[in-house]
Amino acid sequence: MSSMTKLLYYPEALLSQRVHACLVEAGAEDTDAEATTRALLHASRIGVDSHGVRLVGHYVRLLRSGGVNSLPVPVFTRTGPATGQLNADGGLAHSAAYRAMDEAVSLARDAGIGAVGVHHSSHFGAAGAYVVEAARQGMIGLIMSNSDAAVSLFGGARPFHGTNPIAMAAPTSGSDPWLMDIATSSIPFNRVKLYRSLGLSLPSGVAASDDGRPTRDAQSAAFLQPLGGEEFGFKGAALAGLVTILAGVLTGAALDPVMVGTDEEQSDRKRQNVGHFAIAIDPARFIGQAAYDLAMGSYLDLLRNGPSVNSHNPVMAPGDREWQEARKRAETGIPVDPDTQRILGLI
Amino acid sequence: MSSMTKLLYYPEALLSQRVHACLVEAGAEDTDAEATTRALLHASRIGVDSHGVRLVGHYVRLLRSGGVNSLPVPVFTRTGPATGQLNADGGLAHSAAYRAMDEAVSLARDAGIGAVGVHHSSHFGAAGAYVVEAARQGMIGLIMSNSDAAVSLFGGARPFHGTNPIAMAAPTSGSDPWLMDIATSSIPFNRVKLYRSLGLSLPSGVAASDDGRPTRDAQSAAFLQPLGGEEFGFKGAALAGLVTILAGVLTGAALDPVMVGTDEEQSDRKRQNVGHFAIAIDPARFIGQAAYDLAMGSYLDLLRNGPSVNSHNPVMAPGDREWQEARKRAETGIPVDPDTQRILGLI
Repeated sequence: MSSMTKLLYYPEALLSQRVHACLVEAGAEDTDAEATTRALLHASRIGVDSHGVRLVGHYVRLLRSGGVNSLPVPVFTRTGPATGQLNADGGLAHSAAYRAMDEAVSLARDAGIGAVGVHHSSHFGAAGAYVVEAARQGMIGLIMSNSDAAVSLFGGARPFHGTNPIAMAAPTSGSDPWLMDIATSSIPFNRVKLYRSLGLSLPSGVAASDDGRPTRDAQSAAFLQPLGGEEFGFKGAALAGLVTILAGVLTGAALDPVMVGTDEEQSDRKRQNVGHFAIAIDPARFIGQAAYDLAMGSYLDLLRNGPSVNSHNPVMAPGDREWQEARKRAETGIPVDPDTQRILGLI
Repeated sequence: MSSMTKLLYYPEALLSQRVHACLVEAGAEDTDAEATTRALLHASRIGVDSHGVRLVGHYVRLLRSGGVNSLPVPVFTRTGPATGQLNADGGLAHSAAYRAMDEAVSLARDAGIGAVGVHHSSHFGAAGAYVVEAARQGMIGLIMSNSDAAVSLFGGARPFHGTNPIAMAAPTSGSDPWLMDIATSSIPFNRVKLYRSLGLSLPSGVAASDDGRPTRDAQSAAFLQPLGGEEFGFKGAALAGLVTILAGVLTGAALDPVMVGTDEEQSDRKRQNVGHFAIAIDPARFIGQAAYDLAMGSYLDLLRNGPSVNSHNPVMAPGDREWQEARKRAETGIPVDPDTQRILGLI
């Protein structure tokens, strides 16, 4: 990829400061800008550049167009001993998602488990950013979000569900959390765009042309297919549905197939009403804290010490590769593309 | 399949009575036999014959060998306003799983969400059986179970996780619930055995030979690969891990890679210590009951009325095919193979 050669590396602290300043300049309130910056840096730090600082331009445009509310008045309502609803008032989603996870943790501290639904939110970026916060507080965190239609149903001829990510983090004693963060499609649509620009064929079973027929041709790929591909895509579609029901139907958010798209949102100020669903679980209320730490340690030892098919690629737990990358980037800095360098005033 | 020709059809009520009698004769207590019968008939009714009445012989052998405790003293401990732990004392899992789901529903009635961990349980069959009960009580139900090693990690050369199913049911107003019930492998191992007997090739990316290399040869397939196959199996492996962490690590159950296998269990009375994790969520505490019913109805209308690639196969919601089959079998009866006919004293 020729653009790779133009990447420059910057320390996290500098990027953090510049991203924050950009968002505030675009009209975001200080606390919202802080949350968005934190979420983007989480992704950049662990190597998920698609959801990292690269997105700052996108959020700046949304703030400027009104596609995202720059002065939201979010309202959290506790609806039960273990539940709550958060109306994000159309603001930046990162702030709402951190808040929902925090409230879920606080509910779980009292009740053993806590769940918070979020509605009238927007695209929350990397789901993993929020669950890591729960894990840092000793809780198992789960979060999911619906999104605008991009993925067909199993056998469906139109995009229906969003890419609907599910993330979970589980705390480990004295080490980085187990961290899963997956979309319920096999690939994101920007992977299709990347393959187009590289002139490569797509893997089979990941995308479909306009009429819904599977295609490996990146040029004619019009939308995505659910995880599991041509034979087992009913599983990915069911998982996407699980996310839509919990994050969308249950919270009062827009349903994926009729949700305003992100492009539309930018041109005429319509807001998306994205929904999220956050759960926190306190290990102390199940097996107990000490036994949980021990069992989690055993589980990860068994996993990491198992034999791999290719001895050069040891078996890893979800998150291992990402935390490894974070340690590397703490030394090298974080790579930033030229467009984003300009937006951040770095060149 | 030649054995198909020997299937005979029996009414549900007759099978129910015979399965119950068989289990009681093998030493099960009345209430446990009832729960196991109910779970097996759920699977048989909706067409999931692999987890249906066919399993009665398996449970009879387990009860006779002591692999399952025929006189368990389960202990439920409420550990918080929204949480509890159930020690199933090595008994039949169906009874424990129904109990866990019921307790979760009752916790959710108070707290908005409820979660129950189960340990010292056994193989619980079709996960969908339990979540349907939550949906009948107006709750969204989720359940998952770990199990003994059968599925490799992504790039792993040995079976590590169990097939680790995840089921969710969401109530709908005046109609059957949305019902997802999926393993986190692409196929179950008995599909490999079926393909062996039929001399067919397996789909790609679903199974591996002894050394962990992917194979489509059913004869040499030694274990399963996670959902997502050779390129995206890291997602299926992460989902299997989510199940092991919640149903196994968190509850105090045995970890999949070191769990006693079901064969072993039958020969020398070792018990598995399988774990389950059940969650119930009350829609009334989120968007509210009336709005939930409306949104769920809209979601399913949008889903079912969307265009399909093949006009002979309309797009379906998870569970639609199964409820359709249940309506058919209410007329035709439930097919039973000759071995099971003998066990049930039907021939």
